[in-house]
Amino acid sequence: MTPIKLIGFDLDDCLFDSTGLSERARIKGIDAIIKMGLNIDKTKAVGILHEIVNEYGSNSSKHYNYFIRRLNQMEDDIGYLSYNDQYKYIAAAVMAYHAEKVNSIKLYDDVEETLKKLKDLSIKTAIITDGIPIKQYEKILRLNIDNLIDLVVISDEIGIKKPNPELFKYCLKKFRVKGKETIYVGDRIDKDIIPANLNDIYSVYLHRGGKYDNYQADIKIQGDFKPNYEISNLNELFNIINEINNIENSK
Amino acid sequence: MTPIKLIGFDLDDCLFDSTGLSERARIKGIDAIIKMGLNIDKTKAVGILHEIVNEYGSNSSKHYNYFIRRLNQMEDDIGYLSYNDQYKYIAAAVMAYHAEKVNSIKLYDDVEETLKKLKDLSIKTAIITDGIPIKQYEKILRLNIDNLIDLVVISDEIGIKKPNPELFKYCLKKFRVKGKETIYVGDRIDKDIIPANLNDIYSVYLHRGGKYDNYQADIKIQGDFKPNYEISNLNELFNIINEINNIENSK
Repeated sequence: MTPIKLIGFDLDDCLFDSTGLSERARIKGIDAIIKMGLNIDKTKAVGILHEIVNEYGSNSSKHYNYFIRRLNQMEDDIGYLSYNDQYKYIAAAVMAYHAEKVNSIKLYDDVEETLKKLKDLSIKTAIITDGIPIKQYEKILRLNIDNLIDLVVISDEIGIKKPNPELFKYCLKKFRVKGKETIYVGDRIDKDIIPANLNDIYSVYLHRGGKYDNYQADIKIQGDFKPNYEISNLNELFNIINEINNIENSK
Repeated sequence: MTPIKLIGFDLDDCLFDSTGLSERARIKGIDAIIKMGLNIDKTKAVGILHEIVNEYGSNSSKHYNYFIRRLNQMEDDIGYLSYNDQYKYIAAAVMAYHAEKVNSIKLYDDVEETLKKLKDLSIKTAIITDGIPIKQYEKILRLNIDNLIDLVVISDEIGIKKPNPELFKYCLKKFRVKGKETIYVGDRIDKDIIPANLNDIYSVYLHRGGKYDNYQADIKIQGDFKPNYEISNLNELFNIINEINNIENSK
């Protein structure tokens, strides 16, 4: 018998609505610029910002700088912005963006209860995530789950990045558990499900309805690409734990 | 007759207590680390942080990273911190630091009234400052003086840095005024008073009692190093304006 001893989670878009929060924060930034006096249609401005996020990546710290530079180069109807106006707009946007990020971050409704129940069951918990270490830990502290998570594995710190299965093996080693004693919950086939499967970890695909929620069970995905389970609420985990424990017990 | 048409101000430690705010924010960061569980004497921790600020400069964004690294290398009684603890402490410190910086910034008591009176007198106002442009403009927006200042000159944007007198000349040109029609108010002989004097701008040394407030009139400073006036409250500016205008009128 090898019951489940560890459950790993992806962080962004799994424990909280990271994509939605970033999007809302970006729009708050545009709102702030318009409120400050820039004469631009909001829908158009948001479209330009989306292009920039796609081109420079969502982790760039200069989205609004690029936004203003692009307006200056391409939007003849706005006219060339003075340095003072440029900085005023960028600063206002950055302030509004950060205020939203700091004040509006919150867990999905099913997370806190699930983590507490796992603690009661003496099942260990880990977060395995990419991203900038300090930023990722800031999210964990703001979400107030620091005391409910036993280990945070940030790929940047280990030098092994998703989807490298060695990152998940590192986590197993830290807890001295086997893959068969472990469940991993994530929202991406490529970065979460595959490396879990390659380590014989029970893989759980979590549907959160976001823009990366593109896995469908009826698509013929086989082998390492196929999650062992699919859920849309974390409380379904407990049935899965029971099922796995029963299977393992009956062996 | 050439009455005063423009008054320039330094920003940090002149319009608000920048040094004090940074110091309070740094200590809030240390408080957060200790609250999070690090076993270190607060006075000792603040001392280490001060060393780091001196070594890496006050504008480094990694003071707390260096603080934790230094503890790991040098403080045997603390023991080697796990990556999780390191990031938890750094993230907690950064969050507390920024919260203090965002929430506690405020003008010196004499600033808003002075700027409003200058506006009523149709005297133009400028801020001439070094520093990171977006950060400097964030301060101006948070201090809510954007509408009371006619021009913000940030040296990083112009490519000419204090104490280069060309930075002040640039500002005179933008307003099409002469030095003799201008007053500049700052708190440093080297970066504020000298470049003002070299442009024939009336130089005013503002005593705010901070750590750079080291000019004393009884020290024999001559020529370009000597401010034309010394004040400890901005409302004294109006007597100076009257005095200059009378002198210029009587010529």
